[in-house]
Amino acid sequence: MEFPVIPLINETKRNEAAERQNSLTKPTGSMGRLEELSIDIAGMTGRIAPELKKRSVFLMAADHGIVREGVSPYPAEVTPQMVMNFLNHGAAVNVLTRQSHSDVMIVDIGVNYDFPDMPGLISRKVAKGTGNMLDGPAMTRPQAEEALQVGIDVLNEAADRGLELAATGEMGIGNTTSAAAITAVLCGKAPAEVTGRGTGLDDAGLARKVAIIEKILDVRKPDAFDPMDILCKIGGFEIAGMAGVTIAAASRSIPLVMDGLISTAAAALADALVPGVRNYLIAGHRSPEAGHRFLLEKLGKYPLLQLDMRVGEGTGAALAFNLVDAANNILREMATFESAGISNR
Amino acid sequence: MEFPVIPLINETKRNEAAERQNSLTKPTGSMGRLEELSIDIAGMTGRIAPELKKRSVFLMAADHGIVREGVSPYPAEVTPQMVMNFLNHGAAVNVLTRQSHSDVMIVDIGVNYDFPDMPGLISRKVAKGTGNMLDGPAMTRPQAEEALQVGIDVLNEAADRGLELAATGEMGIGNTTSAAAITAVLCGKAPAEVTGRGTGLDDAGLARKVAIIEKILDVRKPDAFDPMDILCKIGGFEIAGMAGVTIAAASRSIPLVMDGLISTAAAALADALVPGVRNYLIAGHRSPEAGHRFLLEKLGKYPLLQLDMRVGEGTGAALAFNLVDAANNILREMATFESAGISNR
Repeated sequence: MEFPVIPLINETKRNEAAERQNSLTKPTGSMGRLEELSIDIAGMTGRIAPELKKRSVFLMAADHGIVREGVSPYPAEVTPQMVMNFLNHGAAVNVLTRQSHSDVMIVDIGVNYDFPDMPGLISRKVAKGTGNMLDGPAMTRPQAEEALQVGIDVLNEAADRGLELAATGEMGIGNTTSAAAITAVLCGKAPAEVTGRGTGLDDAGLARKVAIIEKILDVRKPDAFDPMDILCKIGGFEIAGMAGVTIAAASRSIPLVMDGLISTAAAALADALVPGVRNYLIAGHRSPEAGHRFLLEKLGKYPLLQLDMRVGEGTGAALAFNLVDAANNILREMATFESAGISNR
Repeated sequence: MEFPVIPLINETKRNEAAERQNSLTKPTGSMGRLEELSIDIAGMTGRIAPELKKRSVFLMAADHGIVREGVSPYPAEVTPQMVMNFLNHGAAVNVLTRQSHSDVMIVDIGVNYDFPDMPGLISRKVAKGTGNMLDGPAMTRPQAEEALQVGIDVLNEAADRGLELAATGEMGIGNTTSAAAITAVLCGKAPAEVTGRGTGLDDAGLARKVAIIEKILDVRKPDAFDPMDILCKIGGFEIAGMAGVTIAAASRSIPLVMDGLISTAAAALADALVPGVRNYLIAGHRSPEAGHRFLLEKLGKYPLLQLDMRVGEGTGAALAFNLVDAANNILREMATFESAGISNR
């Protein structure tokens, strides 16, 4: 599979944004992370304080064969039920994208359910869920490539229509198991260090989930230096799709806001597949899921929000859109010391 | 001085909000801090998921006699210059309140400058800056009471016009020195533990600021159990004004979002003056100023944002308004498991 080329960051625009920040009527550096963010965005987009009005959360939904092992307190049928909820605008991500003036692109990339034709649903099903990772690889290599291509396609189509800001989100009962396994391999950590309670496992459930991930890694033996091998053996269709979205966003110089553990695992795989992708990533929200901070450290990203949210769907990213706006608004709208006639230090 | 009574929190509405949160289509508790916030707001306002459209940042400006000791890298004339910048909509708080659909009430409560009559400026000057705390008390008792009353008045006037959400912010070159001194006394900490770089002191400047605060506390000896004594001896007019705003907001059951160190020091004084005030407080943003976390711990508040911002003005609070909206929007707009026909765990 051939991946698109990732453009270099525009250092001239970064410097220009940094200089302008220093001219604004506030103590030097005093907008903290928002100053850094506005400078990063200038480097990504080649524009100083762009409005980034055209924005989408790419919400990929898929099922997971591993659910048969009891890794989630919710039954697998919740995946298609929640897809219907997204389409009916009733989920958390619908509320938060409405607030931050973003749309949601809902993609069935591997749900174990036959949806009727529905307005708003992008049907790009690769298969009706992954295989059980304990019995064999989650997906075949052609399936992994197809799922990556789905992500690349939907992002590119949106970019052709003028997309300026992207985020990834997901729905898939069981997918924190896949994401934790990927995190263990990519970050070189033991499963117990990176595995969390997902949607709400109790202590016994968590211990079982850790044991299952240990067994998966023991029998599948994914190669830590081969992201495609990781994806095929222990990935998910929505994770592959989000990785594709992330790669394509970077290739189009579009900033991409990561959501929680699963979205960030996809972004880390994307960056492993195509070096340079991380230069276009923004960390929206740090999840309480244990592995998330290791992924963020690996990517060198500081999360804009830390609110103990663990919904997924792209909610943390959608909420962070407000901070992306704040960062750009500050740089675009504030007076300078000179224009306001204020004494500098 | 008589203070207004603070109403009890509405526990019935808190419970109703918590029950509704548990019925929404997401894992139990999975919106984290935003769930808690929506429940807190129901308890404060007696309303489930109110829109809180009428919102203001109360921005109090005043000068500080201690500036003559070189505690700030900026000259005192920046205080009136920045007031002009607020009135011209060029400052950081103007940008962030525009984004979060809030207005800014700009109050001259003690600036050392004769402003002309200007639209948008509320002129309630108590005096042209405080006295130098090294030489005597910052203000007299009648001045402290007058400044508190200014805050109470402006909040009550806004509440009479329908105010639903408030925040405090400030401008006053030198005021982190006063706020750090107050923090040391209220939290029982040494000045070195609670003193920060303010708008950007270097190491030598920071050491000098710590030494000055040590000397102030040594000569003024404010009584840790007498908030009025603290305010008179080591306070500021804007700090007293913000404390008044905070007390009045609580008395009107209006949630008040705190900003950084200075706003929170004012809120902690308000809560010491009138027990129960803290029940109406929301922590907007944790400042990198050293003392801020002790104040937040004392008040039992978790900050919604931690972005290393140190502008003051109410910027952290204005930014947090977006999260207040998110918390209420989630509770108001999401589907329930029942309405969406989704299997619960």
